[in-house]
Amino acid sequence: MSSASLPVINIGICGLGTVGQGVWKHIERSRADLESRLGAKLVLARASVRDLKKKRAVKLPASKLTTDPMSIATDPDIQIVCELIGGTTLAKDVTLAALRAGKTVVSANKALICDHGPEVFAAARKHGGHFFFEASVAGGIPIIKSLREGLVANRFGRIYGILNGTCNYILTRMDREGLAYPQILGEAKQLGYAEADESLDVEGWDTAHKASILAYLAHGTWVSTKQMLVEGITRITQADLEFARDNGYSIKLLAVILRDFKTGELNVAVYPALLPQSLVLANVHEVYNGVAVSGDVVGETVYIGRGAGQDATASAVISDIADAATLLVRGNAPLPEVNLPKLPLAKPENLRSRYYLRLEVKDEAGVLAKISGVTAKLDVSIASVLQRPGETPGAASLILSTHESNEKAIRATVARLKRLNCVVADPVLLRIVNF
Amino acid sequence: MSSASLPVINIGICGLGTVGQGVWKHIERSRADLESRLGAKLVLARASVRDLKKKRAVKLPASKLTTDPMSIATDPDIQIVCELIGGTTLAKDVTLAALRAGKTVVSANKALICDHGPEVFAAARKHGGHFFFEASVAGGIPIIKSLREGLVANRFGRIYGILNGTCNYILTRMDREGLAYPQILGEAKQLGYAEADESLDVEGWDTAHKASILAYLAHGTWVSTKQMLVEGITRITQADLEFARDNGYSIKLLAVILRDFKTGELNVAVYPALLPQSLVLANVHEVYNGVAVSGDVVGETVYIGRGAGQDATASAVISDIADAATLLVRGNAPLPEVNLPKLPLAKPENLRSRYYLRLEVKDEAGVLAKISGVTAKLDVSIASVLQRPGETPGAASLILSTHESNEKAIRATVARLKRLNCVVADPVLLRIVNF
Repeated sequence: MSSASLPVINIGICGLGTVGQGVWKHIERSRADLESRLGAKLVLARASVRDLKKKRAVKLPASKLTTDPMSIATDPDIQIVCELIGGTTLAKDVTLAALRAGKTVVSANKALICDHGPEVFAAARKHGGHFFFEASVAGGIPIIKSLREGLVANRFGRIYGILNGTCNYILTRMDREGLAYPQILGEAKQLGYAEADESLDVEGWDTAHKASILAYLAHGTWVSTKQMLVEGITRITQADLEFARDNGYSIKLLAVILRDFKTGELNVAVYPALLPQSLVLANVHEVYNGVAVSGDVVGETVYIGRGAGQDATASAVISDIADAATLLVRGNAPLPEVNLPKLPLAKPENLRSRYYLRLEVKDEAGVLAKISGVTAKLDVSIASVLQRPGETPGAASLILSTHESNEKAIRATVARLKRLNCVVADPVLLRIVNF
Repeated sequence: MSSASLPVINIGICGLGTVGQGVWKHIERSRADLESRLGAKLVLARASVRDLKKKRAVKLPASKLTTDPMSIATDPDIQIVCELIGGTTLAKDVTLAALRAGKTVVSANKALICDHGPEVFAAARKHGGHFFFEASVAGGIPIIKSLREGLVANRFGRIYGILNGTCNYILTRMDREGLAYPQILGEAKQLGYAEADESLDVEGWDTAHKASILAYLAHGTWVSTKQMLVEGITRITQADLEFARDNGYSIKLLAVILRDFKTGELNVAVYPALLPQSLVLANVHEVYNGVAVSGDVVGETVYIGRGAGQDATASAVISDIADAATLLVRGNAPLPEVNLPKLPLAKPENLRSRYYLRLEVKDEAGVLAKISGVTAKLDVSIASVLQRPGETPGAASLILSTHESNEKAIRATVARLKRLNCVVADPVLLRIVNF
């Protein structure tokens, strides 16, 4: 079939920022290959921007630009709408309008999916369109396709991953260079590896959004970020990194999705953890993401790649566009759905881990006795104790590691320890991965 | 939709061996989840075996068993045929018969695809069926789906991987236990990690079949194993493993698929290589497979998982069955094709690498001068020399590493060195990965 006789797919890009321009650029660059593979002509029909006058790396005629993304969402000539606006207000309106018009929406918007997933998926189903979101989690890694299709034979006992490139970059540089969190954060911002407002990333919420999406795909159960334990990396210091290194661990911010096949309970959590260096993910550094998926048929599989940035995200968006185009050319039939019984969430007393606890304490006699009195009372068994100079003058850092304990006991322990006079700052609690 | 009203997909399994039984077992086990996701009832209709009386772990009624796989391939009630017979004779007949009847064939048969890929794909295309083969390369890892769909935006400059679990298991144990190849091979056979006739695995041909499939998927060009450099692991000794370890490398049997964007040339090769331990794949051990894919948009992504065995292979076969069922329920439309211009193969003089060369030499004066005379004459520049006790009494091992050189020069060098009187055994040539 000559290119001229191929069916035409019109694509609209809402939000021509970094990712949108990457999508445009790479489709133009690989157009011949893509069209030959897909058997369809891909036309970049329109794009919406906030400022028509702004200079962009991608050149396109003024006639293709608009400041009104809704006009793209409802344009009858456009079949695929890429929602790259971000946020959960205008982006939601645009997504729902396009889906209600029977279009296919390709999205990188994890917050939107996490907050409004059921509504968005229902709109796609009802109006015969599709909603694709490979770019929303670990951009460069086709993890959503792998979970949904490649590993469909499996039930997933454990999925854990490094899903935020900013946090991984900061932790990697802190570990390598021995510098403090605020200094590395500042440099990461200058280099464009961290946002001006970094809180979504470093407090764990971005990772939590992605964890919610993976949990839904794997288990068909929506877990909101409010139902998760979500902890960030802002309180990690050189004391923690040194202890980890000296004991054969790396500290990584993890999303952890556990399904207990005995109780049927699901647990989704985000926390910085000490990961044994023998695990592949402990050696995934810089801005890279990595996901380890344990399936009951396949065993453990691991996926590593860039999680964000113009090109990795564009690669994922274009793969969704290709899937959407394939479907459109062939009649746009519905796809398999995640349609599984809803799982109950795990209770804290059913979650077991080893823990790392750093306490800033007054450097005086009797402190260890008081602290170990508390842990003994609450049934948390100490595996090791290390005392080192504290973060502030006159204080000492007391680093405890525990034997396996449960989440309820450790939380009660931390609450009790905080109230001790000899403890001068909020304890830092990290989990020690023993899977 | 209640399960009773779902459309029914009848599946036939040709070859109810280890993998076939795994497929049957895991479909039975996860039937509810699978059917709910796919919106179709999966019926295991018939299976072919060589011996009707043989005891099997999977119980099924005698009425479902036949000794004639062709009767399954041509059964009008069956829509999906799993060809798990192996080999390229009966398996080919069964595959082509099923495809000519318009059915979808799911295959784990890398040799068949490698030897008869174009014919098989053409038959699927012509008769409106499909041919799926996720299980043929790195079973547990959805690498075929990732290359074909997830990374469709990319052109692939470099794909390299550990694709044979038997070789990786042998090399891992030799390295860890300091034992010789024949001893570990014997134990691997006892444990079922190596076939009775191990030559396909350890001589590199199994890896070459898989490399051919990945090269076709990535570049649309069929490269037969005859057109590749294919080297195995049988001559690797503790001297090689020790040198590698002492210098920060692991030795792995690699498939390497390189595309030079400047010359347009493609090179596909299989060889044992010294891989820097800083690379993720250098730390993929035991029976695990790993593939590193460099795309021009996404950068490098890495995939790790079990490559073979009943369960990993069954996981891949079932994912293909799920894709086939999804298509069948929705009208079985054609899928995108790899339809790219054929690439020329690279000439040896255009291939550059660093090399490791172990020479067994007479332990006498003047040997090094003779050898370095040869390398200098052929323009191969030596980076390091190490002499150690030889593999046989009275001989010495001379281990050379070279600066970057080209394949033509190194092959000429090895040929010339072999003819020297002081060289008492065929030289062992390994590549040192510098990508």
